Amino acid sequence: MTQATKSAVILNPTSSEAESFIEKALSARKTLIVAGNCEVHYSGRASSTLEPGERILVIKQDGALLVHRPIGYEPVNWQPSGCIFHVQTRDKEVEIHGIRQKPRENVKVRFSSIFMVSTLNLIDSGEFVLSASEEDMHKAILVKPSLLEEGFKPISYEKKVEPGFVDVYGVDRNGKLVVVEVKRKTAGKEAALQLSKYIEAIKDRATREIRGVLVAPSLGKDVQRLLATLGLEFKALDPKKCGEALKKAPAAKLETFFQEN
Amino acid sequence: MTQATKSAVILNPTSSEAESFIEKALSARKTLIVAGNCEVHYSGRASSTLEPGERILVIKQDGALLVHRPIGYEPVNWQPSGCIFHVQTRDKEVEIHGIRQKPRENVKVRFSSIFMVSTLNLIDSGEFVLSASEEDMHKAILVKPSLLEEGFKPISYEKKVEPGFVDVYGVDRNGKLVVVEVKRKTAGKEAALQLSKYIEAIKDRATREIRGVLVAPSLGKDVQRLLATLGLEFKALDPKKCGEALKKAPAAKLETFFQEN
Repeated sequence: MTQATKSAVILNPTSSEAESFIEKALSARKTLIVAGNCEVHYSGRASSTLEPGERILVIKQDGALLVHRPIGYEPVNWQPSGCIFHVQTRDKEVEIHGIRQKPRENVKVRFSSIFMVSTLNLIDSGEFVLSASEEDMHKAILVKPSLLEEGFKPISYEKKVEPGFVDVYGVDRNGKLVVVEVKRKTAGKEAALQLSKYIEAIKDRATREIRGVLVAPSLGKDVQRLLATLGLEFKALDPKKCGEALKKAPAAKLETFFQEN
Repeated sequence: MTQATKSAVILNPTSSEAESFIEKALSARKTLIVAGNCEVHYSGRASSTLEPGERILVIKQDGALLVHRPIGYEPVNWQPSGCIFHVQTRDKEVEIHGIRQKPRENVKVRFSSIFMVSTLNLIDSGEFVLSASEEDMHKAILVKPSLLEEGFKPISYEKKVEPGFVDVYGVDRNGKLVVVEVKRKTAGKEAALQLSKYIEAIKDRATREIRGVLVAPSLGKDVQRLLATLGLEFKALDPKKCGEALKKAPAAKLETFFQEN
């Protein structure tokens, strides 16, 4: 397909021009963008009404629907993929109905005027790769403790210990305390020294043996030797792997964890 | 403003045409839509990369940013309102940077080709009115039990009781059991009789006094008299008020409720 046929646009169409343009786009399963003054009625599990105003309607190639106001990142109305659409003109207003079968839901977008209609024929197979932040890595270990090691049980999240905060804190399968310091990038000597300080701060109060584990995708030069000298361990963990673990975990699980601990 | 100046479009612009068109739109705080082949890099709390593919970029009048793939209702990348943008051309590719200060976040959308650029000047002050479903009304009472009455404590959600399901079930401030039947619209005689059946089914097993409360926005003809005869109560509750209560409650609260009970 040449670039020239990737998109088509009409500005300020009459209602009948808009109707036939939209109908063709929907039956060809193209992505459709309509900007104009519309009202929106939704009925299904709940019901809602959006009074007239100037907005953007997007219908995607898989039948997902979005209505966007000129401000805010969230759509005001939306439907997931799989809607079936039909369009008609009534009293010179163009009505687009989107219907979903299960659960039964119905969105009606009624345009009193249309500024622009555009159809797009988009092909997108690009991969989305997410790397987690340090905070996300902490959360991933809490949600899936086996990322650190089998049998690890987290106790508390960012437990306050002088001289700072411990990232993750827990008990291993042998009942030893485990203090975990997480870095998103190659860990340097500072990370090893910081972890060592944390452990010194806890040591006096602890009644059992303490292990210190530095978690990072990799170690900087000579850091492995420093860790050995300080009696600390290293666990290689990729932020991307943490991102994946968080994606799969339902958000509620983590919330519950924090409230219980 | 006349309708003719509401929108402007260029199809298949060169990179320099696109750059100057986009720059004008952003400095005039118009809504901008760009469709083309792009890659997206995000860095901030986490970081992500979206490999090249054909997508729609929307930048709204308040600086919110959305990148939409041709399928799915969710944006693949997004930023809330308040981003600051700049655009430049490098090696014939148009790069749009969106930067947020707090927290520091950076989105870079780099177009290798652009099929369409459109600017829109939208005015929207229409109100969005949400009515809750019956299920939403149950949830609203669980999240905010004072919607039913002060001192009410829900025990269980859709507790299974022959001959059907009890909508909401709890204990009032005096320790009496409360069985609640919820209707989204004007409640008729069937609703009153249904509630009465539920209570008969529980009565034999209960060790304390039981109250039956029919919750609905209003009662049908003669239903008040029937309720009195059956020894049941009525509580007027507007689905819109429930919708508002749910909007304000964080989703996690309800999840936690279900896991604990």
